Amino acid sequence: MTNQYSITLLPGDGIGPEIMDVTVKVLEAVGKQCDIKFNFQTALIGGAAIDAKGVPLTPETVETCLKSDSVLLAAIGGYKWDNLPRELRPETGLLGIRAALELFANLRPATILPQLIDASSLKKEVVEGVDIMVVRELTGGIYFGQPKGIFTSETGEQRGVNTMAYTVSEIDRIARVAFETAQKRQKRLCSVDKANVLDVSQLWRDRLIKMSEEYPDVELTHMYVDNAAMQLVRNPKQFDTIVTGNLFGDILSDAAAMLTGSIGMLPSASLGANRPGLFEPVHGSAPDIAGQDKANPLAQVLSAAMMLRYGLNEPEAATKIEEAVLKVLDLGYRTGDIMSEGAKAVGCQEMGKVLLQVLEGN
Amino acid sequence: MTNQYSITLLPGDGIGPEIMDVTVKVLEAVGKQCDIKFNFQTALIGGAAIDAKGVPLTPETVETCLKSDSVLLAAIGGYKWDNLPRELRPETGLLGIRAALELFANLRPATILPQLIDASSLKKEVVEGVDIMVVRELTGGIYFGQPKGIFTSETGEQRGVNTMAYTVSEIDRIARVAFETAQKRQKRLCSVDKANVLDVSQLWRDRLIKMSEEYPDVELTHMYVDNAAMQLVRNPKQFDTIVTGNLFGDILSDAAAMLTGSIGMLPSASLGANRPGLFEPVHGSAPDIAGQDKANPLAQVLSAAMMLRYGLNEPEAATKIEEAVLKVLDLGYRTGDIMSEGAKAVGCQEMGKVLLQVLEGN
Ligand SMILES: [Mg+2]
Ligand SMILES: [Mg+2]
Repeated sequence: MTNQYSITLLPGDGIGPEIMDVTVKVLEAVGKQCDIKFNFQTALIGGAAIDAKGVPLTPETVETCLKSDSVLLAAIGGYKWDNLPRELRPETGLLGIRAALELFANLRPATILPQLIDASSLKKEVVEGVDIMVVRELTGGIYFGQPKGIFTSETGEQRGVNTMAYTVSEIDRIARVAFETAQKRQKRLCSVDKANVLDVSQLWRDRLIKMSEEYPDVELTHMYVDNAAMQLVRNPKQFDTIVTGNLFGDILSDAAAMLTGSIGMLPSASLGANRPGLFEPVHGSAPDIAGQDKANPLAQVLSAAMMLRYGLNEPEAATKIEEAVLKVLDLGYRTGDIMSEGAKAVGCQEMGKVLLQVLEGN
Repeated sequence: MTNQYSITLLPGDGIGPEIMDVTVKVLEAVGKQCDIKFNFQTALIGGAAIDAKGVPLTPETVETCLKSDSVLLAAIGGYKWDNLPRELRPETGLLGIRAALELFANLRPATILPQLIDASSLKKEVVEGVDIMVVRELTGGIYFGQPKGIFTSETGEQRGVNTMAYTVSEIDRIARVAFETAQKRQKRLCSVDKANVLDVSQLWRDRLIKMSEEYPDVELTHMYVDNAAMQLVRNPKQFDTIVTGNLFGDILSDAAAMLTGSIGMLPSASLGANRPGLFEPVHGSAPDIAGQDKANPLAQVLSAAMMLRYGLNEPEAATKIEEAVLKVLDLGYRTGDIMSEGAKAVGCQEMGKVLLQVLEGN
């Protein structure tokens, strides 16, 4: 039986269309092999939407996304739109689609690819084999908590205030995503908090412990956020899956990503509650090299693999794509951003062709 | 003219007394050379105070500290007192003396010593020459902000809440310490916040910019906390002095410390408003090796150097101590915790003797 999925493509701006183009071909090739049919529709977002429709996100794009099974985004933004008022900036379109899809769980892998290990600032023996998944809560915590603002006290002094808050239901739903993510990996989940000082962390920890009863196959541990920042530097191999709140996740997912030394290779996933997930590379739209066939499409291709694994539950097809990426690197093909001595320099399109050859040769 | 200082020694527990003993001898030796007279008095804190007086901090100890020019602390705690109720634990004594001295500024250096560079998990070329000072606000921010607690909403759902708040006067006084610290260093200050999202950070950034008018010789830059965590991993050499709030400082000072790979070598300083500062190593009391002449006294010795530089404004004497520590390492002397092949293994007392020889040979 053929599984069918409706996928909304949001190529966006800059190098977005080029890398999306390669990714669609890769998805179609792997679909044929795994008996999966993708029905793609393309929609506008970011600068492309501003140019065509005057706003960075239209109701039509939102509707198209909501009706699909998954959304694959490339990148948005560019110099051209930098001086528009905030509500008309490309970034506002991205925030809008995230809100519309209620994407409360952000999955940020930090995987060391053996072929690119020299790019890391850490010693080879420290990062060899590192494969971390940070599950970050994305719609709660201190970035959204009320009250917030700059207030003036009775004495006339200004006081800046933000509120870090989580409810039980907010914690439980991110915990569920984290336990299920760990189940697809090495089944070790490290919850990062500051429960020795923060009440909100104490509730977070209590709920994680409670939820772990439903996932007896996953080993749950706890770590304070300052120690986690140290341990990522000291011995990142100790981690499998990490779950944490919005602010701590913002900091730790970026620190973990930087361990790899090649941010341009990293995909990400954002998952909602009973809504399509959104999958996108960590890198930006790189307007300086747009349209020159210089872009590295691999993070976008790996985002499609995350879509298959975490959005569509097609792990076999996901693995095929991930293995093809590794094989292409093994064969020595490199775009400019990851070029090293003795490797074969290729452009975006040729990288795509080699990927297809490898996939079809499998 | 001889400068005279009254110094309160808090040797505390575990290896504390041994490393304090070495440090006092080093201070006396450098005092002779620099025409400084130290009047030492020893007071009880932590487990030692519990055993002698029944509480981890007595009013007499607080009074002695308040009357002195600086306080030098070694380390507190041990298995023996771990099962006491919280108000009788050694750590409560430490929190008590910090509160009594109103220590709002925590200075945490992360310096790569060339002799110990191999201990870092980062590549030599990445960490060579790293010399960072993190100035962390210590008595405000989310660890103390009100309201805090776990509350039950009208719908019966629990919600954990903490408040990140800073007033203008709290920001200004830590900014002042940071600018003055940067003036004693490379005069580059990087303020870390999350001003793109947090109101409290926006006030923080506004005040830092305002305060910088008074310090035209210091170059002020700003960085978001997630990017700072990345940059510490990617290229730590870019930083000189970092100033940030309590929570961000907790995370980043530990991450920066771990870049060195030898936490056992790191000192720290905590400064108050018109009160004596407190100087202590980052490491703990190591009860497992206490009394065996195995402890590494160098972080304690370097804490005394920080006391001279940041507490007593005696930079020349501070430099003498720091140079002596480097020289001893150059000569190949190592305690067990930093031992490497081909080095000369020494105990705590012998490390002290070699330090004195080097100091007196200068
Ligand atoms: Mg971030
Ligand atoms: Mg800490």
